[in-house]
Amino acid sequence: MRTLIKNALIVPVDREDEHYFKGNILIENGKIIEVGKTDEKADEIVDASHMIAIPGLINTHTHLAMVLMRNYKDDMENLQAWLSQIFPIEDKLNGDDIYAASLLGASELIMSGCTTFADMYFNYDRTLDAARKVGIKAVLGLTIFGDEKETEKRLADAERNMNLHQGDPRYRFDLAPHAIYTCTKGTYEMVRDFAKEHNLFVHTHLSETKKEVEDSIKEFGMTPAVYLDSINLFDARCYVAHGVHLTDQEMEILKKKNVSVAHNPSSNAKLLSGTFPLKKAINIGLNVSLGTDGASSNNNLDMFEEMHVAAMIASASGYKVKAYDILKMATINGARALGYENERGSIEEGKDADIVLLNTDTPSFCPLNNPVSALVFSASSECVDTVLVNGKTVMKNRMLTGIDIKSVMDRLRMQWEDIKKR
Amino acid sequence: MRTLIKNALIVPVDREDEHYFKGNILIENGKIIEVGKTDEKADEIVDASHMIAIPGLINTHTHLAMVLMRNYKDDMENLQAWLSQIFPIEDKLNGDDIYAASLLGASELIMSGCTTFADMYFNYDRTLDAARKVGIKAVLGLTIFGDEKETEKRLADAERNMNLHQGDPRYRFDLAPHAIYTCTKGTYEMVRDFAKEHNLFVHTHLSETKKEVEDSIKEFGMTPAVYLDSINLFDARCYVAHGVHLTDQEMEILKKKNVSVAHNPSSNAKLLSGTFPLKKAINIGLNVSLGTDGASSNNNLDMFEEMHVAAMIASASGYKVKAYDILKMATINGARALGYENERGSIEEGKDADIVLLNTDTPSFCPLNNPVSALVFSASSECVDTVLVNGKTVMKNRMLTGIDIKSVMDRLRMQWEDIKKR
Repeated sequence: MRTLIKNALIVPVDREDEHYFKGNILIENGKIIEVGKTDEKADEIVDASHMIAIPGLINTHTHLAMVLMRNYKDDMENLQAWLSQIFPIEDKLNGDDIYAASLLGASELIMSGCTTFADMYFNYDRTLDAARKVGIKAVLGLTIFGDEKETEKRLADAERNMNLHQGDPRYRFDLAPHAIYTCTKGTYEMVRDFAKEHNLFVHTHLSETKKEVEDSIKEFGMTPAVYLDSINLFDARCYVAHGVHLTDQEMEILKKKNVSVAHNPSSNAKLLSGTFPLKKAINIGLNVSLGTDGASSNNNLDMFEEMHVAAMIASASGYKVKAYDILKMATINGARALGYENERGSIEEGKDADIVLLNTDTPSFCPLNNPVSALVFSASSECVDTVLVNGKTVMKNRMLTGIDIKSVMDRLRMQWEDIKKR
Repeated sequence: MRTLIKNALIVPVDREDEHYFKGNILIENGKIIEVGKTDEKADEIVDASHMIAIPGLINTHTHLAMVLMRNYKDDMENLQAWLSQIFPIEDKLNGDDIYAASLLGASELIMSGCTTFADMYFNYDRTLDAARKVGIKAVLGLTIFGDEKETEKRLADAERNMNLHQGDPRYRFDLAPHAIYTCTKGTYEMVRDFAKEHNLFVHTHLSETKKEVEDSIKEFGMTPAVYLDSINLFDARCYVAHGVHLTDQEMEILKKKNVSVAHNPSSNAKLLSGTFPLKKAINIGLNVSLGTDGASSNNNLDMFEEMHVAAMIASASGYKVKAYDILKMATINGARALGYENERGSIEEGKDADIVLLNTDTPSFCPLNNPVSALVFSASSECVDTVLVNGKTVMKNRMLTGIDIKSVMDRLRMQWEDIKKR
């Protein structure tokens, strides 16, 4: 099966900065096999003469099922106060809730041009089912909370379920110890060893709030990243979320240990956690990716909005961030964070055909003075017309192909009413 | 002609904070005549059972025609550097350019739920034509630059054109001296007197950058608002844009003189002008409205995005701004800024039927835990389904009724190509 995307304005996010050109993209068996003037015969031709083609966006930190708690109790003063409202609801959730919510979350991500997400939640098997149904790629973090005894159970569970995706390269399981304030040192050590033994990635929250840092210094005599480094967590392949309060020293450690930071600007702002020092991170050369966090602290899963908010918050703090740097965060840096830099994150020959086509016949792109600027500063998800994952069209004309969004929403509303009664 | 909007979830933005209820809205001759359980007979019934109804948004500071320069030279380090790129282009613009650009700008505003905008630009007569064509209400600032000699010409021009709108209450002309760094003291005095004589509002840029404040202190020995107060500009009815660097003393002056400040969060961020002290302004009780500024420094005219960015930037600075306060900025506070508080800005009996219906059958509103939160934190302009201005439907199912957006964009692209060749 060959697909030819014709006459697109391609922003490949490849090795050349700010690069874009008019061209075609030839796809075979889910892979990009040629980019440029290619005009080979294909089974399917996609006319992209009014489209910009960009690599599928990569959301490196979310909790998909938390769409359930969108706009719920969101007037809380900080992360701790908000979590105290959220945890009791989470205790009531079952697999069907998670599935219904993940269906909506996955749909919402595709609608904003996201083709891969890194999740961290319970009932990951049901989030996997939802991702398959919608046709989005996923890295599912097996969430771990608590002490070694609890962790033993969870890791046994992980061992049983690790091959639930049956080798489908679109899916992968990572280990996701929640945070240093919810997991013991022993837990992180067990996670480290298990991850190394089974060649798994570790996804954890890190340095999200000032309180976390203060408590870490009080309890361990070290800031959070120094603490995790002291127990050699980063011997396993890691990526961390937030990093709002990382010191220069900690950023240097993370860079040296090949640990990426998922920047979640909306969630950090909304929960008053502070502002991630993006300028410092980019100057140090840390790999910074982008995350929406859960919709309950965002309050949606819109990767275009997230790029925009990242740019606005950085600029408001006095840092003239480049649109292209933001676009990289949402694409190639995300691929690098998840270890997919050879397969995803850019439109280049040999990579997976995860491609987003944006309609340039929209006010945001009119006139089209600078496509990269337009993508970050003007465009919204409404411009996302078509999304391909491994060459398969999962959205066209803004309609999802795998699922009916109205029935997804109906299902979720019913489920949420039921949860509130429990 | 009577229209009945049925079964909407109404967020009226009336005197009661955080108020919303399910109800109907009865419209006659462009006015809201009843809100609530009313079920009178009507010529037209709008089924809004899956809709939220909010007052039409009010954009209190923009330069509509600058959509021409969207994403153009937007890598400049600050306002001054950027203006040095923009002014030479503006020198080349003619009335047809302004009309073509204003058509797109007006369309874009309607598509984001905006029903009134306050503009400041050249060839205001052509922006008026465009606003009429699209069906949006406008306050057109007659831009004034320079010294008294230049101002004399412009005011004569204003006197000639003041009734160009032929008494149509949807339109009004204001005087718009550009800024204290482009207009002389004599100019501001002439504007003050002319405005008082003809009962016109004055719309000016104020305290946008640190440089403006420093130069003001150097030249006049006073900060910008103190300077304008010293020449009694505020004896005329004024509203100012930006106010990024206002001191507490200046905010107190503005409050006392009934001067509103249009907050333009995206533009201020993008041009590294700084961050408007929203918390301080709200605490002092200043009337803060919202503006997109021109699309060339934003880079679009999306009022939902602007609300969102305002909330995110305030939160990132540590201020837990209420969603409802942001919604007020975009509605009733905007009406108050422009002197329309009795006619616009809320869904109340006796007011103009400027109403926006948002489709709640969209992920942003699913589940619908808190409509006000959802409007500010989750929703995007894509949720805006229907827009009424004075009871007339100017957009339905996201399609503009007065104009074909594709031909508007084609026209603008042609015009822009032509400008670049001049």
